[in-house]
Amino acid sequence: MALTGRRKWLNEVIFGTDTPAGRGFDVFLIWAILISVALVLLASVQRIAGQYGELLFALEWFFTVLFTVEYLLRIYCSVNRRLYITSFYGIVDLLAILPSYLALIFAGASTLLVVRLLRVLRIFRILKLVRYLRDANTLMRALYQSRHKILVFYASVLVLCVIFGSVMFLVEGPTHGFTSIPKSVYWTIVTITTVGFGDITPQTSLGQAIASLTMLTGYAIIAVPTGIVTAELASELHYERTLNRCHNCSRTGHDRDAEYCKFCGYKLDEVG
Amino acid sequence: MALTGRRKWLNEVIFGTDTPAGRGFDVFLIWAILISVALVLLASVQRIAGQYGELLFALEWFFTVLFTVEYLLRIYCSVNRRLYITSFYGIVDLLAILPSYLALIFAGASTLLVVRLLRVLRIFRILKLVRYLRDANTLMRALYQSRHKILVFYASVLVLCVIFGSVMFLVEGPTHGFTSIPKSVYWTIVTITTVGFGDITPQTSLGQAIASLTMLTGYAIIAVPTGIVTAELASELHYERTLNRCHNCSRTGHDRDAEYCKFCGYKLDEVG
Amino acid sequence: MALTGRRKWLNEVIFGTDTPAGRGFDVFLIWAILISVALVLLASVQRIAGQYGELLFALEWFFTVLFTVEYLLRIYCSVNRRLYITSFYGIVDLLAILPSYLALIFAGASTLLVVRLLRVLRIFRILKLVRYLRDANTLMRALYQSRHKILVFYASVLVLCVIFGSVMFLVEGPTHGFTSIPKSVYWTIVTITTVGFGDITPQTSLGQAIASLTMLTGYAIIAVPTGIVTAELASELHYERTLNRCHNCSRTGHDRDAEYCKFCGYKLDEVG
Amino acid sequence: MALTGRRKWLNEVIFGTDTPAGRGFDVFLIWAILISVALVLLASVQRIAGQYGELLFALEWFFTVLFTVEYLLRIYCSVNRRLYITSFYGIVDLLAILPSYLALIFAGASTLLVVRLLRVLRIFRILKLVRYLRDANTLMRALYQSRHKILVFYASVLVLCVIFGSVMFLVEGPTHGFTSIPKSVYWTIVTITTVGFGDITPQTSLGQAIASLTMLTGYAIIAVPTGIVTAELASELHYERTLNRCHNCSRTGHDRDAEYCKFCGYKLDEVG
Repeated sequence: MALTGRRKWLNEVIFGTDTPAGRGFDVFLIWAILISVALVLLASVQRIAGQYGELLFALEWFFTVLFTVEYLLRIYCSVNRRLYITSFYGIVDLLAILPSYLALIFAGASTLLVVRLLRVLRIFRILKLVRYLRDANTLMRALYQSRHKILVFYASVLVLCVIFGSVMFLVEGPTHGFTSIPKSVYWTIVTITTVGFGDITPQTSLGQAIASLTMLTGYAIIAVPTGIVTAELASELHYERTLNRCHNCSRTGHDRDAEYCKFCGYKLDEVG
Repeated sequence: MALTGRRKWLNEVIFGTDTPAGRGFDVFLIWAILISVALVLLASVQRIAGQYGELLFALEWFFTVLFTVEYLLRIYCSVNRRLYITSFYGIVDLLAILPSYLALIFAGASTLLVVRLLRVLRIFRILKLVRYLRDANTLMRALYQSRHKILVFYASVLVLCVIFGSVMFLVEGPTHGFTSIPKSVYWTIVTITTVGFGDITPQTSLGQAIASLTMLTGYAIIAVPTGIVTAELASELHYERTLNRCHNCSRTGHDRDAEYCKFCGYKLDEVG
Repeated sequence: MALTGRRKWLNEVIFGTDTPAGRGFDVFLIWAILISVALVLLASVQRIAGQYGELLFALEWFFTVLFTVEYLLRIYCSVNRRLYITSFYGIVDLLAILPSYLALIFAGASTLLVVRLLRVLRIFRILKLVRYLRDANTLMRALYQSRHKILVFYASVLVLCVIFGSVMFLVEGPTHGFTSIPKSVYWTIVTITTVGFGDITPQTSLGQAIASLTMLTGYAIIAVPTGIVTAELASELHYERTLNRCHNCSRTGHDRDAEYCKFCGYKLDEVG
Repeated sequence: MALTGRRKWLNEVIFGTDTPAGRGFDVFLIWAILISVALVLLASVQRIAGQYGELLFALEWFFTVLFTVEYLLRIYCSVNRRLYITSFYGIVDLLAILPSYLALIFAGASTLLVVRLLRVLRIFRILKLVRYLRDANTLMRALYQSRHKILVFYASVLVLCVIFGSVMFLVEGPTHGFTSIPKSVYWTIVTITTVGFGDITPQTSLGQAIASLTMLTGYAIIAVPTGIVTAELASELHYERTLNRCHNCSRTGHDRDAEYCKFCGYKLDEVG
């Protein structure tokens, strides 16, 4: 069923990005989301909450009403309403306004904070930005192509962390901060990812030797995901260039922004 | 000698992954291993061990008996029993059940903990998962191809760490936490791998200057293993694509999931 | 309008790098900048400022006068004076001498420190060095080519940091150092970039579990910019080699420093 | 002048690696160096030095005499004695034995420690190991090819560290541990390389915001050296494969360990 009249126009503005009005609406929305998220961040700072509490409360409700109206309009002008409501963005749009209303019913300070945080999820909508950038597709495709390899990699890392963590628990023991195997595994993850907080550190010589081994292992391991992503990305880039084939001399390998064939000077077709 | 009857069926279920029963058994086994390892982790947390000690003890014996039965069945239905028992997985399977029985004879609290930890090795069996994932082969081959380069790299890093560690011991000395050369080398490894615990830090200006040099060196060094793995992986990926040759126009460079030649549209053969 | 006489000669010496005098002037200037920046660094060390305060003050004015004379000469011998003054280097050249004069008028100790620091910007001029190195172009082009992908990447990282930071604020709370969402986001950035200062660390089990997830995510994420830069750089290197085409057999793929075709032995032309 | 008799035989054993005796001598030497370095490390641990001081002293002199004899024999059997003595390895060989003799004359506890440390340089000789590994050449060539790019990179990183360090000194000031610009630059290097000791951390909101920027910059920067090394290494690997040309069908692209042409099955020649 095709839309007509006002609904069609609203759909183009709210969902579309091809008309000036549609683009303007999206830019406005991104700014509204960014500002409303910034308000949530500021409201969590005690000093600011104490001084500007009422202003923040008023602004929060302004954005809640704004996003509620937007949500209702989106439902109104959808081609398939059920599809929109049950889609990922539909659910996020609902979750972005729900906490403020819930805070009215379940009025508890701590609960209030919890539900407010869900609003941060609204920032996911900014990911729409990604659609504007053609290069994001290359990135996504490269990550998607390497999903199996990354899974194998993470499984191996976790196995390694459990084993190293157990050994460290045995060697250092509760007296040096390694109070349990889960905590030792946490320490191993902190170490193997080269974060190194330093809240728990090995004190015995043997513990420090094993920690050194853990670090050097982590050092080698850091190479693997990089290698996977790079290889796939290089493969994608190569593929993109292969697409750009000259119709005159039928040679490929042109840069993505090339307009003329670098071998025969013939005008190249645009690639989508 | 080919297996017949019950042994053949058991072999297909326990060792095989081609029948529904074989796949089901493997999935069940992986869950059992994961749960039993989780129990070992939980038993190391004092609070949990105090409250649910008896339940954890009972569950530990449940899994020990389960894995013992599985081990005996594996021996029973192996084509070549000696080969299985002396294989890597055969030894790990034995080590995974041995600690519980050993804890019965040598009943000491600390010893008990030590042997229990060996059971964590059982998690290695999960690596069987790897067999399901075709991409793991590419990863393994890339790492195997670059084993010599990685060895050279590690030797160089260790030499560098000993030299930097000795210099730091000389510059900072025992008063600033660099109590011995081995400890200084430990500090250098912590620093060069960019972990940076912060339990030992240089206090003198000269020490901080040398530490800066160490860090910037580590920064450059982190590039080398990544470079090695990536280059080999890209080489492997390129090789994989080369295999995918069209029988009609004999051109290569197709994606691994391509079904038709992208140059002439001819159906491509499957690549294993 | 072409320059003549003294202005032409000065222009060649000060702006040019083709004559021995021009090269000599540039090398002299780089040393003067490096030494004057080193003086600013030393003057900030209280012990040195107390002992050699007057000497540092005298040297500071020596370099200020030197750079002022240089700045005036640059204006004098420019082909288009307005263009130089409003160019990036023209503004940096002015900013490099302004703080010293401003310190005469607004004589306050703290203000003095602020304006002196602007002089550090003078070091940007050392980037002229880059022009000497042909390889910098490859690097810059590779970074420029991947600017969109890097933007997408940074946006995603920031979204991730805000979400993880909010969750950590909720889980750990002000009692464990996570006093506000902005501070939690700061902690998440410290953790996801694998810096890990350790001034704020999660204390609860759930917090440590989420922290582990943050670290492993950071670990995977570190691969993405590396992958982007490497893929573009490899693409650039490949492009450079493609340029190097033999005029006899018209085959490419020669190394950048190759002088003879590796396939037919024919002398290769120089590539700029 | 060609060597004859005993000198020729000694030269083959000591300098050569082609005869069984030469290889045996090298392996023996590497073990001697490793053990003697380990002794220096152990002697720095106070507890061990107190208990086994005399044994360590005796062993130290055993190795000193051994390496002295080796050094004299090397001079004796060199084809060109002056060339050996002034070569890099000749100087390191001398420096490896000198400290022990110097400790006899200038007998001061602290001086003794200093000179002993020079002996650690002897470990450089282990780098001879590198010669055995063919792959080290690829690695070295890749690093050598990218030396200009790495120089540009390090210059940029240092400029960035000085600027960020100055800004942090201004923002945080001496009260929060940023006592001088050099120390702030040290902190910036610790942060930008993602080491993050945590001995100095920003306390103000602005300082933490700038620190976040520093870290995210460091995150992007870590990609550059990796990109450089990887691109050159991939280029080298590609070059190596190009060398491996089939004499029958003249196609390249074979793996380094391939013995038969993958296109026509013809036996491939060995590549050095």
